[in-house]
Amino acid sequence: VPRDALVAWLNDYLNVGAYPDPSLNGLQIGGTNVIRRVAVSVDTSLKTLQHAADSGADLLIAHHGLFWGQPLAVTGPHRERLRAALSADLNLYVSHIPLDAHPEVGNNAMIARALTLQNLRPFGDWQGQKIGLAGELPFEQTLQDFADRVQKLTGEICLVHGGGQSPTVRRLGVLSGSGAGSVAEAATMGLDTLLTGEPEHKHFHDAFEYGVNVVYAGHYETEVFGVRALAARLEDEFGLAWQFLHHPTGL
Amino acid sequence: VPRDALVAWLNDYLNVGAYPDPSLNGLQIGGTNVIRRVAVSVDTSLKTLQHAADSGADLLIAHHGLFWGQPLAVTGPHRERLRAALSADLNLYVSHIPLDAHPEVGNNAMIARALTLQNLRPFGDWQGQKIGLAGELPFEQTLQDFADRVQKLTGEICLVHGGGQSPTVRRLGVLSGSGAGSVAEAATMGLDTLLTGEPEHKHFHDAFEYGVNVVYAGHYETEVFGVRALAARLEDEFGLAWQFLHHPTGL
Amino acid sequence: VPRDALVAWLNDYLNVGAYPDPSLNGLQIGGTNVIRRVAVSVDTSLKTLQHAADSGADLLIAHHGLFWGQPLAVTGPHRERLRAALSADLNLYVSHIPLDAHPEVGNNAMIARALTLQNLRPFGDWQGQKIGLAGELPFEQTLQDFADRVQKLTGEICLVHGGGQSPTVRRLGVLSGSGAGSVAEAATMGLDTLLTGEPEHKHFHDAFEYGVNVVYAGHYETEVFGVRALAARLEDEFGLAWQFLHHPTGL
Amino acid sequence: VPRDALVAWLNDYLNVGAYPDPSLNGLQIGGTNVIRRVAVSVDTSLKTLQHAADSGADLLIAHHGLFWGQPLAVTGPHRERLRAALSADLNLYVSHIPLDAHPEVGNNAMIARALTLQNLRPFGDWQGQKIGLAGELPFEQTLQDFADRVQKLTGEICLVHGGGQSPTVRRLGVLSGSGAGSVAEAATMGLDTLLTGEPEHKHFHDAFEYGVNVVYAGHYETEVFGVRALAARLEDEFGLAWQFLHHPTGL
Amino acid sequence: VPRDALVAWLNDYLNVGAYPDPSLNGLQIGGTNVIRRVAVSVDTSLKTLQHAADSGADLLIAHHGLFWGQPLAVTGPHRERLRAALSADLNLYVSHIPLDAHPEVGNNAMIARALTLQNLRPFGDWQGQKIGLAGELPFEQTLQDFADRVQKLTGEICLVHGGGQSPTVRRLGVLSGSGAGSVAEAATMGLDTLLTGEPEHKHFHDAFEYGVNVVYAGHYETEVFGVRALAARLEDEFGLAWQFLHHPTGL
Amino acid sequence: VPRDALVAWLNDYLNVGAYPDPSLNGLQIGGTNVIRRVAVSVDTSLKTLQHAADSGADLLIAHHGLFWGQPLAVTGPHRERLRAALSADLNLYVSHIPLDAHPEVGNNAMIARALTLQNLRPFGDWQGQKIGLAGELPFEQTLQDFADRVQKLTGEICLVHGGGQSPTVRRLGVLSGSGAGSVAEAATMGLDTLLTGEPEHKHFHDAFEYGVNVVYAGHYETEVFGVRALAARLEDEFGLAWQFLHHPTGL
Repeated sequence: VPRDALVAWLNDYLNVGAYPDPSLNGLQIGGTNVIRRVAVSVDTSLKTLQHAADSGADLLIAHHGLFWGQPLAVTGPHRERLRAALSADLNLYVSHIPLDAHPEVGNNAMIARALTLQNLRPFGDWQGQKIGLAGELPFEQTLQDFADRVQKLTGEICLVHGGGQSPTVRRLGVLSGSGAGSVAEAATMGLDTLLTGEPEHKHFHDAFEYGVNVVYAGHYETEVFGVRALAARLEDEFGLAWQFLHHPTGL
Repeated sequence: VPRDALVAWLNDYLNVGAYPDPSLNGLQIGGTNVIRRVAVSVDTSLKTLQHAADSGADLLIAHHGLFWGQPLAVTGPHRERLRAALSADLNLYVSHIPLDAHPEVGNNAMIARALTLQNLRPFGDWQGQKIGLAGELPFEQTLQDFADRVQKLTGEICLVHGGGQSPTVRRLGVLSGSGAGSVAEAATMGLDTLLTGEPEHKHFHDAFEYGVNVVYAGHYETEVFGVRALAARLEDEFGLAWQFLHHPTGL
Repeated sequence: VPRDALVAWLNDYLNVGAYPDPSLNGLQIGGTNVIRRVAVSVDTSLKTLQHAADSGADLLIAHHGLFWGQPLAVTGPHRERLRAALSADLNLYVSHIPLDAHPEVGNNAMIARALTLQNLRPFGDWQGQKIGLAGELPFEQTLQDFADRVQKLTGEICLVHGGGQSPTVRRLGVLSGSGAGSVAEAATMGLDTLLTGEPEHKHFHDAFEYGVNVVYAGHYETEVFGVRALAARLEDEFGLAWQFLHHPTGL
Repeated sequence: VPRDALVAWLNDYLNVGAYPDPSLNGLQIGGTNVIRRVAVSVDTSLKTLQHAADSGADLLIAHHGLFWGQPLAVTGPHRERLRAALSADLNLYVSHIPLDAHPEVGNNAMIARALTLQNLRPFGDWQGQKIGLAGELPFEQTLQDFADRVQKLTGEICLVHGGGQSPTVRRLGVLSGSGAGSVAEAATMGLDTLLTGEPEHKHFHDAFEYGVNVVYAGHYETEVFGVRALAARLEDEFGLAWQFLHHPTGL
Repeated sequence: VPRDALVAWLNDYLNVGAYPDPSLNGLQIGGTNVIRRVAVSVDTSLKTLQHAADSGADLLIAHHGLFWGQPLAVTGPHRERLRAALSADLNLYVSHIPLDAHPEVGNNAMIARALTLQNLRPFGDWQGQKIGLAGELPFEQTLQDFADRVQKLTGEICLVHGGGQSPTVRRLGVLSGSGAGSVAEAATMGLDTLLTGEPEHKHFHDAFEYGVNVVYAGHYETEVFGVRALAARLEDEFGLAWQFLHHPTGL
Repeated sequence: VPRDALVAWLNDYLNVGAYPDPSLNGLQIGGTNVIRRVAVSVDTSLKTLQHAADSGADLLIAHHGLFWGQPLAVTGPHRERLRAALSADLNLYVSHIPLDAHPEVGNNAMIARALTLQNLRPFGDWQGQKIGLAGELPFEQTLQDFADRVQKLTGEICLVHGGGQSPTVRRLGVLSGSGAGSVAEAATMGLDTLLTGEPEHKHFHDAFEYGVNVVYAGHYETEVFGVRALAARLEDEFGLAWQFLHHPTGL
């Protein structure tokens, strides 16, 4: 597949222009003009770039890229990352907020589907836009059973803060990655439980004072879904072979 | 001690005006006009406010307060916190960045002293100011021995990321709380290890790519030092009885 | 009436989301969960809060609230206001710009109706939105007769600046409260007279140089209309008893 | 006196560079190159410009000028003002905040001197700088006697808000013009009374809740002092004849 | 024609409100109330204002006006310009970005028409809006022949940077005035050549590294088209006589 | 010379921290750790990077670098530039405003010395700092003779705008590069002539209306001095061989 055609398709499919995200969503590093093989990962690190190149991929698609709003001197680790990609003629395509929020392959849409959430509605404020989802479980579960079910999904033990008035889960908010600050929004919407990725000390007390259960399943572990679903979508659309590069952080 | 005199002394001693910190450092809630007994805590939560009131304190001094730059409606948990303080006539004094940075009783100064760091110099950028400390251990230690020593200090197991070229510690940077983003600064200063509080997914790869060991001792656990030292200083200065309210978050 | 249902109705009816107003429009202090009796006032002061509580109201609705964009320490008069409300379990609901601009119960809509203005059109710029009204009197009046009519409406003597080319009133702009800066807009729209609340020295010369009559009827006096009309609307909708708390400022 | 030399002297004497004031302090309109006669006024209006020209002045010095931070189209009243000055070759020099704050000829310094205030110290925050003065009266006065004394000074009746715990004046804050927002600062400094110019509805309750007496002597009336004192200083320095153009606004 | 009616027509026709342009588009200087004769020019300078007045025009329409976002003291050259206009009762109407972008009489629309560009589409980003045009020549030309054709249009020699892979022109981007920064956009759109006004050192290398030919026809020379076409439109609409004042800058 | 020691010396010598310049002054691309040979150029382009690498340099020092405040995707020409440097292990050090302003090797200091300017004083405002120089020629020259002298210095014909009241040069302002906007400042300081680099259409009329002669010697040509002088200084200090890479732009 021609690289430029693939990038144009991705920008359109992921609705890149809809989010005022300073993460430089789109092609962050140019490489070969034709894409035959794709690798996907959560992060862009020296290891994922090298792994992608070693795997024979022409394109790495990552959720977290290299740029966060400030120009970077090409020195230290940033230089090594660029060298790894440039010397392998590897393309890097990044999709951050657009891939959290996407209705078909987004991190939150994929988690909601895996948990068979019903009656989905927007949840999870990011600069005035909702990028997560709220919904109901088909049946009420104990908080511990629910956490076990999430653990089966991700393969990692969850951190559970049982702040809710009752240790059961029925009305759930899902916000992948860094969503600890959404407890108040969950309470306002009448949700009993929030499933998100990474805990933060500054939001610890929210669960207990707003009366909302919070299940922290890991920043990394809640964001493996989007890139894999996007890769599967590319395979359907273009017949491209792909591979998920698993480099967990434990965070 | 008259409350206003104590507040004036604290504002002066902690050099409140030196930091453009939007955390409303100073007296955040007014209570009784005379202070006979002091409680100190890391956070301001409903529990710490109630605990302070129940303990007979007239004044709670906390590192983290109620306000972070935005006005808050007096509803939900914020209302309950204010009610708890107002109904007990409890004063709340908050010192955030000034208490990280203070040369005598600051969180970082206290940790550096406990670790007998030598040759102290400024480290840890916060909006252009250095609020942490760097220094040398009196003798080289293995990273594991060092982490064990930190564990003895805080009572909690540390998360250790051995990113450095050698698994030993000699030149250390100390930045309490949320300091995961200071790995690059540590590398630039030639430090081999960073001791900080809370890990962040987005900085996970920094340790390994910049070649710096990182010991995460917990946001809460690295910030118990300042408020306790400040309380001891008040006892010396004014003869005030005090108590530390321990409400750990595990984060 | 359940408090949360009433607040939701008010937020919707007053179209709170339409105005980028930093005044924290909505529920500013939480109290009892059920509303049986309502008080309304122009300002939120210690007196109006105490008066509302003493009158047996569960909810005070005010045009001017407690917050104007900055966080406030809970000390001094702000503490006394919060204590008065919290100790009485009084709710405070605030509607600032939305209640100036509302087409049915807004301050300007009510004044326009009382003056039987015809051919109403938007007037009075507030951050790019028009929150006042312009229209024609059914018959031309002398400026003095018009001021007398306004005086009958408010009960207070008006300050009259006869800057217009003729001392008569026909085409009127209405902007409650602080509208002295709208003289130029009035001139551009071909209005002969501006009716507003509070004079300002810096706009004194505008009336005379733009050739527009200005009638200053008082900040307070021009803003009693909205809260009273809103209360009457609540009575119709929910059968709630209400009372207007009159605490004029003379300004 | 050469105009450019006079402007340079004024810019230096008034310390123009010390205040981040967007009012374009300095020469706002150029006219004749030699200054033989000076007029001074509080405001720049069509009338004051015409009066200055008719009086034979080459230079009008005003406290309030034409520009407040935004560019203005040369239409309507702004055009008439410019035409009046340009057709008469009249220079316009403006000194806003520098003339409130000046230690010798500033509005506040002159009022403090007229009231024989003692033990002067900075008061009256304007963007982080103090531009007013606080001090003690040589003897305690009743609030009414003090207001009468101010009335003798300005010739206008004052608006008096007796918010203080006692209706007497001893420790006074002085802030000319628009200083109603400084009541909290006055209370913090232990002042019993604030003397300022223009009342504002939004600060009405401050006097009563902070317990500070406020005497409003008029925006215009409190700002006649600086321009007259500056003119007298110019007469001393350069022997220039001058005239004060009195165009009161009653505000 | 009444001046105010003409200004209202121009504001509407040029869609002034569509562009967040700080250039004060609209009537910048007021003059006679009736317009009988119009002059148009690219710039507003002392010479063009005097020339307009001497030519008997009541209104000068210029592409570049007097204000660029900051207030200006009425001294030096700015004073002389205002004096020239005011003493002649000359009106000045300015249309900057709206006249670059206008689909009928805009600078870029007129150039595109003169070059018989086909298949026109938006090109030339200005703060997120496209104000230029891209299109195809009806036949391919050598870069030199194309530059000669542009020279015939403007009467001035062009500066030609042959950065493109082939020295021929077929797909052209047109952006009058200061468009040297649009080379990357031209490359992204697959254009082979950019026609713009003024070269800039900082964009010199773009042509050669992006592989795009650039023809610089002069800031002034590419912006004579809009004001002349607008004047012709006014003649059609209102029967107004007009004259183009040619004051080239060579830049 | 070790690269890091050289970079530290340069940062210190050039006083990098003194200018709030978003151009990422300092090491922009990392390469070999030891510097044996240096190349210097005005711009960083693909050609200058390749030329530097081909010349055997380990370090290119340029006045204009790669970054101007925004992050850049590593695609198109930016990718080719990085590839050229990285594949050659070439270091790139950039000094923009610090090298205009430096008192010994700055562009303006070097031009002032070459023209034997006397009585040097600061001139040329850049964000509130003066980065150019003003001074007197030892003898008065005709404007044409002066332009010929500048031409001998740079090797390029100058563009001369004789806006001054007299076609002679005695009091000169020097501002390398993009200084056309400094005419008003030159007039205020009583200079008769401004020597700068690049003309701009928008400042064309300034010379004629402020009455200041302007000699435009080229953006490129006025900025060759600093990098060459800095290289000579490095040769003195460290004995490093160096070469100037001449890639003129004609602008």
